This record gives sequence, C-alpha cells and structure tokens, in this order.
Amino acid sequence: MKEAFTSDNIAGASDSVIAAIMAANQGDTMPYGNDDYTAQVTRMFTELFECDVDVFLVSTGTAANVLSLSAMTPPWGSVLCHSESHILNDECSAPEFYTGGARLVGIGGKDAKIDPIKLKTLAHQKKGDVHSCQPSSVSVSQVTEVGSVYTLQELKTITAIAKEAGLPVHMDGARFANALVALGCTPAEMTWKAGVDILSFGATKNGAMTAEAIVVFKKPLAKDLGHLRKRGGHLHSKMRLLASQMIAYLTDELWRINAEHANGMMALLQDGLKGIPGVKINTPAQANMLFCTMPTPMIEYLLAEGYAFYTGRWAEGMIRLVTSFRTPKEGVEAFVESARYFAEQGA
Amino acid sequence: MKEAFTSDNIAGASDSVIAAIMAANQGDTMPYGNDDYTAQVTRMFTELFECDVDVFLVSTGTAANVLSLSAMTPPWGSVLCHSESHILNDECSAPEFYTGGARLVGIGGKDAKIDPIKLKTLAHQKKGDVHSCQPSSVSVSQVTEVGSVYTLQELKTITAIAKEAGLPVHMDGARFANALVALGCTPAEMTWKAGVDILSFGATKNGAMTAEAIVVFKKPLAKDLGHLRKRGGHLHSKMRLLASQMIAYLTDELWRINAEHANGMMALLQDGLKGIPGVKINTPAQANMLFCTMPTPMIEYLLAEGYAFYTGRWAEGMIRLVTSFRTPKEGVEAFVESARYFAEQGA
Amino acid sequence: MKEAFTSDNIAGASDSVIAAIMAANQGDTMPYGNDDYTAQVTRMFTELFECDVDVFLVSTGTAANVLSLSAMTPPWGSVLCHSESHILNDECSAPEFYTGGARLVGIGGKDAKIDPIKLKTLAHQKKGDVHSCQPSSVSVSQVTEVGSVYTLQELKTITAIAKEAGLPVHMDGARFANALVALGCTPAEMTWKAGVDILSFGATKNGAMTAEAIVVFKKPLAKDLGHLRKRGGHLHSKMRLLASQMIAYLTDELWRINAEHANGMMALLQDGLKGIPGVKINTPAQANMLFCTMPTPMIEYLLAEGYAFYTGRWAEGMIRLVTSFRTPKEGVEAFVESARYFAEQGA
Amino acid sequence: MKEAFTSDNIAGASDSVIAAIMAANQGDTMPYGNDDYTAQVTRMFTELFECDVDVFLVSTGTAANVLSLSAMTPPWGSVLCHSESHILNDECSAPEFYTGGARLVGIGGKDAKIDPIKLKTLAHQKKGDVHSCQPSSVSVSQVTEVGSVYTLQELKTITAIAKEAGLPVHMDGARFANALVALGCTPAEMTWKAGVDILSFGATKNGAMTAEAIVVFKKPLAKDLGHLRKRGGHLHSKMRLLASQMIAYLTDELWRINAEHANGMMALLQDGLKGIPGVKINTPAQANMLFCTMPTPMIEYLLAEGYAFYTGRWAEGMIRLVTSFRTPKEGVEAFVESARYFAEQGA
Repeated sequence: MKEAFTSDNIAGASDSVIAAIMAANQGDTMPYGNDDYTAQVTRMFTELFECDVDVFLVSTGTAANVLSLSAMTPPWGSVLCHSESHILNDECSAPEFYTGGARLVGIGGKDAKIDPIKLKTLAHQKKGDVHSCQPSSVSVSQVTEVGSVYTLQELKTITAIAKEAGLPVHMDGARFANALVALGCTPAEMTWKAGVDILSFGATKNGAMTAEAIVVFKKPLAKDLGHLRKRGGHLHSKMRLLASQMIAYLTDELWRINAEHANGMMALLQDGLKGIPGVKINTPAQANMLFCTMPTPMIEYLLAEGYAFYTGRWAEGMIRLVTSFRTPKEGVEAFVESARYFAEQGA
Repeated sequence: MKEAFTSDNIAGASDSVIAAIMAANQGDTMPYGNDDYTAQVTRMFTELFECDVDVFLVSTGTAANVLSLSAMTPPWGSVLCHSESHILNDECSAPEFYTGGARLVGIGGKDAKIDPIKLKTLAHQKKGDVHSCQPSSVSVSQVTEVGSVYTLQELKTITAIAKEAGLPVHMDGARFANALVALGCTPAEMTWKAGVDILSFGATKNGAMTAEAIVVFKKPLAKDLGHLRKRGGHLHSKMRLLASQMIAYLTDELWRINAEHANGMMALLQDGLKGIPGVKINTPAQANMLFCTMPTPMIEYLLAEGYAFYTGRWAEGMIRLVTSFRTPKEGVEAFVESARYFAEQGA
Repeated sequence: MKEAFTSDNIAGASDSVIAAIMAANQGDTMPYGNDDYTAQVTRMFTELFECDVDVFLVSTGTAANVLSLSAMTPPWGSVLCHSESHILNDECSAPEFYTGGARLVGIGGKDAKIDPIKLKTLAHQKKGDVHSCQPSSVSVSQVTEVGSVYTLQELKTITAIAKEAGLPVHMDGARFANALVALGCTPAEMTWKAGVDILSFGATKNGAMTAEAIVVFKKPLAKDLGHLRKRGGHLHSKMRLLASQMIAYLTDELWRINAEHANGMMALLQDGLKGIPGVKINTPAQANMLFCTMPTPMIEYLLAEGYAFYTGRWAEGMIRLVTSFRTPKEGVEAFVESARYFAEQGA
Repeated sequence: MKEAFTSDNIAGASDSVIAAIMAANQGDTMPYGNDDYTAQVTRMFTELFECDVDVFLVSTGTAANVLSLSAMTPPWGSVLCHSESHILNDECSAPEFYTGGARLVGIGGKDAKIDPIKLKTLAHQKKGDVHSCQPSSVSVSQVTEVGSVYTLQELKTITAIAKEAGLPVHMDGARFANALVALGCTPAEMTWKAGVDILSFGATKNGAMTAEAIVVFKKPLAKDLGHLRKRGGHLHSKMRLLASQMIAYLTDELWRINAEHANGMMALLQDGLKGIPGVKINTPAQANMLFCTMPTPMIEYLLAEGYAFYTGRWAEGMIRLVTSFRTPKEGVEAFVESARYFAEQGA
C-alpha cells in the first residue's frame, strides 16, 4: 500500500511514548491518578504554560472536549462554535449528553474560523429570555477543521467578544502542537494570554496512543471536573498509562518535533500540489491538514494507485489530506509525483 | 516498601500485553475500531465464549458497566443489584448518568450475593405503576465485592428469577477470570449458559493496562451500544491500543494463568492468616480478595512495617487484602509472618 | 388600553370551558387520570380523528411537544424541523432535556415550511455513522411560526420523505384548530391520513386555560409516554381539571367556532392593512397570525395609541399580529383605522 | 357510594378557588407569569412567610419537588431523605431526571421522620471521594408519608445537622397547611426559622385544583429556577390560572380553614377507630392521614359497604385513610359506625 493521508490518527505512537509506557509498567502505583506520574504531568503542564493549571487526563479527544464544555455550560445554555467544528459534527450527541442538554450553535466564518461579527450578535442574543437557550460559552478549534490556524490577534478578537459577554472560552486543541508550530509562539501566548480559559490538549494525533489532557487556566472551571470525569467513566484506574504517555510527549519537546515534521510534510505536499494543473487548494494549509479539489478521474487514479485519503464527504472533487509525525518524505513525494503524472498524462 | 495488597489495580500490565502494544504500534491502521486487531478480538471472544457475540472495547470498568446498564435499562427503570455492589457504591452517579436517570436498587444477601427471595419480590414490585421506577434489569458481580464467588447454581437461580420477570441480566466481571478459575468452569458456563445477557469482561485488573470489553450475548442489547459508546466519549481513535492488549490477554490463556496466580496467592495468604490468633476471616476468599478482621494494634503494626492495604472504611478492625497476577509469594509469606510475629509478641 | 394583538395566549378561556371546570369540580374522582372525564376525552378524540388513538393530557404546549419528541427520538438522534420552528427557538433546551440530548436540526424553507429537497438530503445524512447524530424524526408546525399553513399535499410530501427514511413525524399543533379551519379539511385528513404519527393538539391558545393533548396515531409511539409524562412531572393528580377543559373544547365544535372567529378577525385585519401605504404583508396570513412590515414611525404611533403587539425581535419594522377567539371586530377595525390614519397623516 | 378516604386529591377545589379562576378569566393578561396575578402571589407569600421570598408556580407537586431538588443538588450529588418519602417512592425517576442523575438516599427513622443520628453519618459520608455520590441536600416531608408531623425542634435538629455539613434543606410540603395547623405555629416558624431553604408549598390537595408553589427562602437557590422550570415544560402561558388559584387559597386563610377541617375530620375518625376492637393505630395521625391495621374481614366488609381507601400495598391488614377539606362529618361517623358494627358482629 502507498502512503495514507487519511488522518493523523492512523499512525501509532512515537517510540519514546511506547518506551515510557514500558517503563511505567514496572512496580506498583496507587490507582486513579494518585501516583507520581500524574503529579509530574501537572508540574510539566504548569511549566509548559507558565502558570498554575489544573490538569485532567482522559483517553479520548471526545472526552476532553465534552467534559470541558460541561464545566462551562449549564443545561439551558448554548455553546457558540463554528458550524464546521468537530464538536458540532463529529461527536455524535456527546456534547448534549455531558452538558445535560445544552445546545451547540454553529456560526459561519471563512476558513472555519468563527466570524467575530456574528459571534458578537449571538453572544448577547436573547440573554435573560427564559424561553431561549442562553449563550454560555465559546469554543474554538485550533487547528481548525479545514486546516487553517487562528492568528493570535484573531483569537484575541474572539475571546474579547466572549469575555465582554461573560462567556468562558474553550479551545479544542486536538492538533494543538501543529497550530503552535505554525504560529511559532509559546503555549501561553496561544492560550490563556489570548483569553482561553480551558483547553483540550491533544496528544493522541501527534505521537501518543491515547492521551489527552483537559488543561484548566481559570481555576473555578476545574471545580467539578473530578466528579464529571468519574461520572463519565473517564477516570482510569491505571492512570500511569495515560500519564506516562503524556510525560514522554512533553519531554524534550517531542510534541514540537512531531508537529514540525507533520507540518513540514504538509508544506511539501501543498507546494507539490500547487503546481499541478487541475488541483485547487481550498484553504491554504498552515498546519498538517489540507482540503483541495481535484478532477474526479485524478482522485480515482490516486486511490487506484493505493493512496488513501477521505473523499466523497464534501463537494464533488474535494479531498482531505492529513500528514502526521510519521509521514515519510518519500510518501509525500510519491503522491505528488503520481498526481502530476496523471495530470500530464490525462491532459 | 513491603508488599502492597491495596488492590489489583496497583499492578501494571503483563509483559506480553506491553509487548503486544509495542507490536501493534507499527504501521498505520484505520481508526475507531475499523482495524484488523479489533476484528480479531471479536473472533477470539466468539471462540472463548463458544457463541456469536458482539464486543465493544472500552478503557475503563466504569464505562463497561454503565454502558451495559444503559443498554438494558430505560430512564424510568431500576437496576436490581446487591447493596454492596460496585455499581452502587463506587461509580459516583455514572449509572444514573448513562441510563438517563434509572435507579439502582440495592438488595441484601449473604457474602455480597443477591438474596433470591428478596430479588423475586423486587423484580415484580409495582410493575406497571406509573408512579414508580420499573424493575428493568439485574446486575450481579462475579467475583463479588467481598471476594466471594457465585456458584453456577446460584447464578442460575438469580437469572431464572430475572427472566421470569422479563429482566435482562448483566454481570460485572471486573474480576471475571478470577471467578472463572475459582469455579473451574468454562466462560460459556459462567455467562450465557447461566442466563447472563451482557458482560463487563474485565482485563485491566488482571494483566492489561486499560482494556475492558462489553460482551453481548443477547443480540438486541447490542443495537444501540455503538452510539452509546461514542456519545459517552469512549470510542477510541487508536483502538489498536485496546485491541492489542485484549488479544495478548486472550492469547495462550494469559487471563487464566494470571488469575490462577492471583487466586493462588490469596489462598496462601488466607491459609496463613487463618491460624493466627486474633485474625478473623469475614468471608472466605474464593478468588483474589479477602475481608478479614484484626485487632487494631496488629493493623497499625503491619502498616508501620510498610505493608499497604485498605482499612478504616468499614467496621473497626476490618481490612481488605487483594492479590494480583504480580503478587510475589515472598510478599505473601512475609505478610503472614509479620502478622504472626505481632500476634505472638502482642499476646 | 386598546386591543392587544400580542399573542393568542393573552386571552383567558371560553366561558363553556370555565363552566366545565366548575361542573367537574363537584364530587370525588379518582386521581391521575383514572376518572371518567379522562376516559371521555379519549373517546372524543377517537371520534374526532376517526381512528383509535392514545391520548395523554398535559398542561403546557412545551410539555406536549417535548414529550412527543422524546417518544420518537433517541438521545443520539436528531429532530429535523424548520429553522424558524417553535421547538427550536422558544422551548429553551426542553427538547434536549426530554430526549436525553437529541439535537434539533433546523431546515430552511419558504414561509416557515420545511423545504422538502433539503429534508430529503438531511433525512439520510450520515445514517449509520456512529460519529454523527442520527436523523430520527421530523417535526412540522401547523400553523407555522409565521402564520402560514401547510397544504395537505405539502404535508404529504414531507411525511413521504420522512417515511421513506424511516422517520416518524410529529406535528406541533399549538394552533391546530386554526390550521384546520384554514384548510377546511377533517382532523383525520390533516394528521394520520397525511402521514402524521403523533400530534401536539393545542387547546390553550384557542379557548382552554391550560389543556393540551398528545394524540398518538401510531400505537408503538405511545408505549413509554405514561412513564415519560410522570417522570417529567406532568401527570396531574386532579386530572379532571384538564379533562373537563378538553371535553368542553371538543363539545359542540367549540374548537372550530373559536378558530373560525380568530381566523376571521385575522382576515379582516389583513385585508385592512393590505391597502395601507407603507405596510407590507410578509407572509400572507392563512390562520390567525400575521407578520408584516411597517415604517418605524407607524409602529411607534400604534404603540403610543395603546395597541399591543410584538416588534423589535426581527428585522427592523417587522411586527407580529395575532388574533384570538376573543378578539373583537371593533378592536380590529380600530387598529386598521389607526394605521390608515397615520399613513395618511404621515404622508 | 359511601365516603372515600382514598386520598386528599380526590376532592376538587374549594368554591372560592373556582370563583377566582372565573374572575381571572376576564380580559387579557400578559402570558408566562408577566401578569398582575402572579406578582400578587409573590407579595402574598412574602407577607405570609414574613420574609422576602422567590416564588415559582407550577401545576403539579412532582414538579415542585423535583425542580426544588434540582436547584440544590448537582448530578453527582445525593439527596438525603426518609426511606418512606414520596420523592423516593412515588415520583417514578423524576428526581433523577431533573437533577441530571443525582441519587436519593433513603434513611430510616420512626414515624417516617429522618433519624438524626443516621443523617449525621450520611451527611458526611465519603465527602470528597470522587468515586461516590456526594451528600448534597436534605429533604423532609411535612406532613410525613405516614401522617406524622415533625415538631419544630425535630426540624431544627435535622436542619442543624444539614447546615453543619453544608447541605441545603428542602421541605416537601404537599400537606403544608395540615402540618402547620397541627403544630399551631406560623409559616415562618415551620420553614426558614427552622432552617428550611426551599419549600414545595402544596395547595392542590387542600383546596386548589392544580397549584403548587416553589418558595425559595435562600436567594441563591432561586438563580436557575426560571430556566429549570421552562426547560421542564412547567412554565404556563396562561399563568393566571395558577396564580388566581393561589391567591384564593391564600386569601382569608382559606388554607387554614380547609386544613383545620381536614385535620378535624381525621381526629374524629381516629378517635372513633381507637375504641374499636381489632383496630390498631399504627402511627397516631397528627394531621389528615392515618395508617391503621384491621382484621382482613373488617377491611373486606368496609370495602363491600362502599367505603374507599387504599389497602393491599403494605403489610397485611394495613389501610390508609385520608381526610380532606371536603370530607363530611357524616361520612366519618358512618365509617366509624360501620367498623364498630362489624367488630361487634364479627366478634
């Protein structure tokens, strides 16, 4: 099989993550996060984000997102998010389940970034009206679902509107490291310094096997998360499994190295595709995901050649390509070469 | 530190489980359980249980239990279980959360086994009365929460009462292998042949790191579990992590070997403690868990010596001892020796 | 104060409804609907709809709607409805609460009627995809939220699409009688003969004080409604209060007489407004509700004169006018006269 | 038919309540409680309870109870109540539904009054333990479910324990007036002065048709009740129906007059039964409800004579007798006479 660009969750974990699991497997530890590994994770996050944070490890991104939302949204509230957002489109009704029935309100905006003008209106809409869901929180995805990245200024614009309306802000950072590398800023700058109150810190897509962290910057939002996590069945007894992965992921900037690789491969891929007749870049990839449009025969040819990627889910001819920390340069080059070959032959 | 008998979740995973994770880490696989590892797990369970089963892998025992309950209990229903059961006492309000508000009804009974007479009454109580929670399902723990094991006949008595009242039966098998080894029967005999409809098959406590399976024997109960699992945030993207652990656990009867060791160590421990003046066995341990009572000074001495176990949670002088697949014979012998030493000195 | 066109819920109840409450107040009756009044209501509905129906009386329209939705939508499902629908905009998050977290999916369409083309796409969207809410039911409002009325053919087109996709259909009939009078058809024709499976039969807005009925045409949907109603706190002990109102409402076609009056007053109002310069009818009123647009000074003048109606909630200059069974002809004429006077003076 | 002692909800409403509904039916009023009647109700409660209160009218006792509980109990919390309490036994799973999954913990105690010693233990049990439901609130029934009445001192003992543990206190006052009359104290003394934070003030059983009030003494508990009520479908559009009933109920001490009659009839009934051979008073009735035990043939005789009451739900021979504001003296005397006649004949 040729290279797969299906998703960054088709890769396994980085070697050092697996090694960390092995090492952590030795000896006894207290269960349910009352262990040294878990304590160390909190210390590492505190250092990484340059502030005192509360950390809750979970094993899926869905759990990280919906627990975060449930910590900031009452059952009669609404979460303002982009209409393309993952929480709105790809979590079944988990957000409604965990919040006790809050509503996701999708907002438009270019490149899957929330339109601040529309947000401003919706953040105040029907406030105090008992017949209406109350605007209660805002959620942004960084990297967005089309592969774009909010600039720090764009984030601050969003969070300022939220704060002015009294709404806490969640960041779905399933691809947090990829965004960070794209912006070249510090973790603090892209989160609490930009007005983010609670973060789904993703590691699974970028080198871990199953490790996500809810990182809480605004203390009061952490108050109920211990109970919420347990109630959701997301408190692991052998927490060292999650903690050891996260420690490895945060050690020696593995997260950065992995993300730089994934983003670099995407840059290579995008550069290669740009010059090919018939290929249209939809949203310029800033991180490790790209949506582009191709002639249907080219798509069919590439699939027949053995490349893997999602298509058929959006407008005709649209495909999604994702690179990961493991994507080999040769795979990218071969894909571009195949596309070019078809374009030239087909023309 | 001396040996810890705190719980069987303080041990890590068996070496072959870790090796399996490492091996599964190579290459790409499709996410969310659409991979060969997951398919293999279902085949292995089908073989193990000698019947066609539906399998849903999750990463915590809480998730396995509450998803199972939610598949068989409507929001206005009640789950009949023992008043000492884990689902009633140790899952926060996760059962209520996942079932949408069903109620756990605790039933008494010796050795933490449901009293069939009481069950019979409650299984029919206020049936059809719109003002009352409707008896909707039965859940048994095998091994029970005090370390006893239902005989096959006892199980059949319970499930016959349940079936006569039209209630499906769940088995909380967090220590399934330990119970199976204790009874010396087949997995089929202890489950569907004894009237169990859905099983929380635990592996985490007996050699895995974080792998549990919901095994459904009664097809219609599986209908919604895919959505329920996703909605709960329990569908793992890199499912191979869970699947590979389970494959290793089911391969070459690792589950049996581990459980035999744990049970054997408990037998040794119990035998040793029996003869010590002042020590009273509360419920004879049939698997790997024992509740016994000691003079308070003996407890203090043992803790001071560095042994670890839970106490102070129940009646005065009661302690809980749990052995695992990793508990060393020397550790058990040393503990017994220390207890005996104190008894003789103290007397 | 001049006439109020705020809503049809500002009027009290018809005299015969109050008289029925008084009469029912005599003597003892069994509570919780185990009384003759309630039995009579079911018989009357069976006759009215020319088929065997299950009836559940409740005291609010919200309860009727959300209990109906909960009977046909699983927690991971979605309810397809118009984006202007009452259930989406005016019930807080009651639909999510009662369904356990199902999602309302708003669909566009002219005159607040669901666009069948869009419905067809959404009714099949991501069916079977565990990551997505599953299209599970369809809800139409008759009268719609802008005062239009689905024709029987339009209803059949919607329900045929729903049925083809396996989705049950709910009708929010808060203004059921007004729609029926507008169409001039039988209750059966506008419901089960047109493919409706469950109906919120509204009486409160058209002559009752607090009486709504969930009328179930498709038997299996009624199965859980008894428990769902009780669980929601909507099972009245002195059910005769609700039942007596409904009996009066169904007796001697009070519902029809009241609706004919309300619709007639609206026709008069609309005819009067049509000819006034500066007034624009947005959606032609077919029942008893009208949205129209006026110059802001005209709105201010009318409000200053003492007329009451909602404005300021939609586009600038848009107002909503609703007539009821009690609206007097003189009030309508005076309102039109005032508007005309202003238009002529102001011009 | 002879007199029925089935329940106090088999009677209709007092004449003045019906008259008030009729009067309120005139003219237009703003919907959803934005009317003068509703405002007046709040003023009357403020006066009645001699303090500033928040009032939420609803139409069922279930709604009043479960909304109150949901205002003071998180989803992972537990409500400590008597094991005989109505909220535990007669509200289906409405409490779980409205609280999002909180648990009712039944506590024993003589005469259906919570045992303070047991309460003290449970109020602190497993506090802070993430694996356990957290004790979060206390609910007492006044009148209790067996017809006894807490003394003011008993109430204060309960609430002091609750407050010491940081738990707010709810009173299920479905028969509030009957209890008040029994104690001969003021409404303030039996509620906030005795440590009650939120009250289900029942009127339906004692003269109204369908009117209950949630009366909040502790301001912060009222914060979310507007949204909670709407979300539950319990915000009535024609709120004047509820408000007018409550006004009539509070006017000229109708509540007191009605309760005095009901209690008086029960005293007469109890006195009569006391002297009859074979009849055993189980719990002395202090208000309008009595549990007593009779020989089965006597029960059968009374039922055959046409008297109505509940039996067969409890221990053999136990019956429940309830009087209401409408119970005639002749009915009580005839019942006693019949019982005596049978006792003498049967002996």
